[in-house]
Amino acid sequence: MADTIEKNVTRGGQFLVKQTKCEDIFTPEDFSEEQLMMRDSVKEFVDKELWAHKDRFEKKDYAYTQETMKKAGDLGLLGVAVPEAYGGLGMGFVSTMLVCDYISGATGSFSTAFGAHTGIGTMPITLYGTEEQKQKYVPKLASGEWFGAYCLTEPGAGSDANSGKTKAVLSEDGTHYKITGQKMWISNAGFCSLFIVFARIGDDKNITGFIIENTADNGISMGEEEHKLGIRASSTRQVFFNETKVPVENMLSERGNGFKIAMNALNVGRIKLAAACLDAQRRVISGSVKYANERIQFNTAISQFGAIRAKLAEMATSCYAGESASYRAAKDIEDRIIAREAEGVSHQEAELKGVEEYAIECSILKVAVSEDVQNCADEGIQIFGGMGFSEDTPMESAWRDARIARIYEGTNEINRMLSVGMLIKKAMKGHVDLLGPASKVQEELMGIPSFETPDYSELFAEEKEMIGKLKKAFLMVAGGAVQKYGPDLDAHQQLLMAASDILIEIYMAESTILRTEKLAKKEGETKVQEQIAMAKLYLYKAVDIVTQKGKESVISFAEGDEQRMMLMGLRRFTKYTNMPNVVGLRETITVKLVTENEYCF
Amino acid sequence: MADTIEKNVTRGGQFLVKQTKCEDIFTPEDFSEEQLMMRDSVKEFVDKELWAHKDRFEKKDYAYTQETMKKAGDLGLLGVAVPEAYGGLGMGFVSTMLVCDYISGATGSFSTAFGAHTGIGTMPITLYGTEEQKQKYVPKLASGEWFGAYCLTEPGAGSDANSGKTKAVLSEDGTHYKITGQKMWISNAGFCSLFIVFARIGDDKNITGFIIENTADNGISMGEEEHKLGIRASSTRQVFFNETKVPVENMLSERGNGFKIAMNALNVGRIKLAAACLDAQRRVISGSVKYANERIQFNTAISQFGAIRAKLAEMATSCYAGESASYRAAKDIEDRIIAREAEGVSHQEAELKGVEEYAIECSILKVAVSEDVQNCADEGIQIFGGMGFSEDTPMESAWRDARIARIYEGTNEINRMLSVGMLIKKAMKGHVDLLGPASKVQEELMGIPSFETPDYSELFAEEKEMIGKLKKAFLMVAGGAVQKYGPDLDAHQQLLMAASDILIEIYMAESTILRTEKLAKKEGETKVQEQIAMAKLYLYKAVDIVTQKGKESVISFAEGDEQRMMLMGLRRFTKYTNMPNVVGLRETITVKLVTENEYCF
Repeated sequence: MADTIEKNVTRGGQFLVKQTKCEDIFTPEDFSEEQLMMRDSVKEFVDKELWAHKDRFEKKDYAYTQETMKKAGDLGLLGVAVPEAYGGLGMGFVSTMLVCDYISGATGSFSTAFGAHTGIGTMPITLYGTEEQKQKYVPKLASGEWFGAYCLTEPGAGSDANSGKTKAVLSEDGTHYKITGQKMWISNAGFCSLFIVFARIGDDKNITGFIIENTADNGISMGEEEHKLGIRASSTRQVFFNETKVPVENMLSERGNGFKIAMNALNVGRIKLAAACLDAQRRVISGSVKYANERIQFNTAISQFGAIRAKLAEMATSCYAGESASYRAAKDIEDRIIAREAEGVSHQEAELKGVEEYAIECSILKVAVSEDVQNCADEGIQIFGGMGFSEDTPMESAWRDARIARIYEGTNEINRMLSVGMLIKKAMKGHVDLLGPASKVQEELMGIPSFETPDYSELFAEEKEMIGKLKKAFLMVAGGAVQKYGPDLDAHQQLLMAASDILIEIYMAESTILRTEKLAKKEGETKVQEQIAMAKLYLYKAVDIVTQKGKESVISFAEGDEQRMMLMGLRRFTKYTNMPNVVGLRETITVKLVTENEYCF
Repeated sequence: MADTIEKNVTRGGQFLVKQTKCEDIFTPEDFSEEQLMMRDSVKEFVDKELWAHKDRFEKKDYAYTQETMKKAGDLGLLGVAVPEAYGGLGMGFVSTMLVCDYISGATGSFSTAFGAHTGIGTMPITLYGTEEQKQKYVPKLASGEWFGAYCLTEPGAGSDANSGKTKAVLSEDGTHYKITGQKMWISNAGFCSLFIVFARIGDDKNITGFIIENTADNGISMGEEEHKLGIRASSTRQVFFNETKVPVENMLSERGNGFKIAMNALNVGRIKLAAACLDAQRRVISGSVKYANERIQFNTAISQFGAIRAKLAEMATSCYAGESASYRAAKDIEDRIIAREAEGVSHQEAELKGVEEYAIECSILKVAVSEDVQNCADEGIQIFGGMGFSEDTPMESAWRDARIARIYEGTNEINRMLSVGMLIKKAMKGHVDLLGPASKVQEELMGIPSFETPDYSELFAEEKEMIGKLKKAFLMVAGGAVQKYGPDLDAHQQLLMAASDILIEIYMAESTILRTEKLAKKEGETKVQEQIAMAKLYLYKAVDIVTQKGKESVISFAEGDEQRMMLMGLRRFTKYTNMPNVVGLRETITVKLVTENEYCF
């Protein structure tokens, strides 16, 4: 692999076998002035236009969703990721993530509409469109004059997206295709002007992408609005195409390339979705802290009770970890795009390949952050008690809205399996060397462990060593499973799921520690005690999960001596020299939260 | 303590220090003919009147809730627990639980209305009422001519129930009290004829209970129906009392006894609530299995994929465990009631004390089963994928409805702390000897562990030994915390919560193993392989939780040598000789589920 990028770049999936330095990751503390201004203007928009009218979203006011989407367009928010040549702001990937992040603060309905339009509704054209297609459609999408919708899923084709039955038949004169089929769960269907539609030509193995304008008298009809658990004002309908004509020049990329387009669109969608859970989570935490400070029971603010304090600390920690990993990956992608462009690759191609490179991290983030926001909202309800069950308080909708994030853009099960599957593929192709490190772990298992007393005086010395050990645990467990089942491993989904949980924890924990280390170097340790506590707490829980998932796997695929050796290895790779005081860590974090009366990291 | 009950009775909380024999617990396989008939008629009622009209409940058709409650009354279902002398069926505690269980199959709205009426709306009168009060009100409540509502919670008095501001002022002529105050979250408020109201007389330390008829022109008014996350057709309103007159003879029990009444009503309520999550869970599981068998992706029924199979196995296991523990405790309570009656205590008093005796188990069950049904519904949504997020499929409402069970009847946080708190109190009072066993554990920790190879050839030999070890782990952890903090332990809620998680897992796992052992003795091991797998799987996960919570506690309250000794003890007390093949256990369970196409245990 020719590679002109500087040495300190961690390639996609490489985090697992490489020790990344804290200077080499981007953190939320590194936002530029421009980015901070963008963040503040998004926050203002969210507070003024969305949060203040949250009840309209909850009452399924689809028209208001459309109206606010228009306003977002007026502010330029729909074109953040769109190149200037097509009417966008042409901001980088980190800025794009930042907008997705802070847009999510008020309502899942708007966040979904926003994500569906700017992500999967626009990106397939910016990434795969011809110059003509881009000139014709992208400026309209970037300004909010038009809205886009993405038609992939069908009643019989969900996770198995390439199995759709929608047909595209070329007209006799060769000027257009006729599209016939049924698409479902189409976000923004109710007010979109353009569909990205995937259909099969003839008996092609793979589907093909098309851009279809939503015009009258062209065989396009819609189902009623779906009534959903959450994201109530996100317009979701079935879309029926009945011999809908689309000019041949509206094919996206090449015939049979649709599945690839769909999957790449999802890669981008996944990491953006992770971002789009972050401010939702921050607001849940801040709302919970405020309520816990105000609510008096037993003559005491409930924020003084340990059971509540533990929740607040865990909630903040998961959010802090989500931020750390999301922006780390976002900047890696951005750097990769810039580097490829510097090599002379077109922006379009560079962006495509940049995201594809970090597809593993995109899946990891989608799973981790979508589950964190759900847990956070769940604890938020519990902190609010009876009030949390009422539609009058924001926890209720936060919990419902969060639920979809674990389903769309590939279920968390699919993404878990993808993350490990893609990693193994990368190793097979030689893009990431897992084999070398895995055999080293094997050797280490056979050898005698060191009994030296290590020097842990430096910040995170033990924690960083632990991250290294957790990586060995992954290599041991996943490597063992690959050795045992070879290419049949795909059929052992329970092992893939467990391996994926380990992989996720490693990426999240490492990112959290590196962010905090970088911050401590800048601010001094005493100023960031709470962040240090969060990094330690996150790692402690990650070690627990690795232990649990590793053990479950090993005892299910290995037996006898091999099992014993691997269990011993697992113990060695998850062993702390100095156990942290978990209750004490939580306490450090909560004191700050309760004092600041909001999420403040 | 005088005690005339036979030796093989396990007293409340005593499960922790006693080895219970499988013959001494009641299991769902022990239902009598009469109970099975009752179960079938409840199931029929649920299918015909509730399940078939589930959409009416989802559309907040409060009138239909009332109508079906009347029908339940006509079938005698409202009077199952009511003595025959007051128009009820006078069935035992197990039968009462059975009805709560199977009523829960269709909709949380009905189950809540049913529970609020038959439990906290009726029981305070049957348990604490005078003969006159019982004769006057109970027959009407048992038949469904009247409905009852329970007014305890106030805006400022939730978990801190005794802090209510509602006042009761004696009239000058001494004939009646005037009640003034605001009550909230009142289930069945919209259609009840009678309120159980708690109010404070003067500056009494404790509140007092009253029976108030819902008549016009007596200062009673109501808020609008609350709009809630779930249980949509359960009528929930605020109730305002403004100088509402209640005759002095309508005081419940004595002045200042209200808090005790409220707490005892909640004890019964808690175990019934656990039961009232069971059939909800079974139906979620059956629905999920059916869908997974029907849904084809990648040319394969998704029930064939390991990621789905693991979920199904875990879902069934948690339900099986919930059944095992719920009916075990129910029968212990029933036996206790019968025994006390045999001693000459009135039925009323016997019932009161019978439930109070097992208050720890009631709290354990409330927490465990309410969380299991939530997790089950959550996985159900995930199995249904996009469809799971739609109001058109039953997983959506199951998930929302389940959410309230973790909040009402005391939040799960309150119940967790209560379970351990009550146990410690019992130990202090000498009702359960924890001190003796705890010091034995201390001695064992100092001693050298046995290296004998134990004989585990008998079914569950290792598992039963493990249960014994988990009990030691609890005694070590909780005992250590008590030693360290003494009476201040209350202020260390995080430790109480962790100890409670351990306690819960012990009771649930032991009950599951004992039920299965009893079943295997009856049916032969080969016939109950799936149940054996569930018992082993449940225990395996319980051991993980004990390890995790135990470690978290020990490293937070102990240091140095003490910490090291306790961590070593924890490892010893959670160590398997033969690790189970977790994936294999799940597979055994799922094969059966997928073949039977429903929950079938």
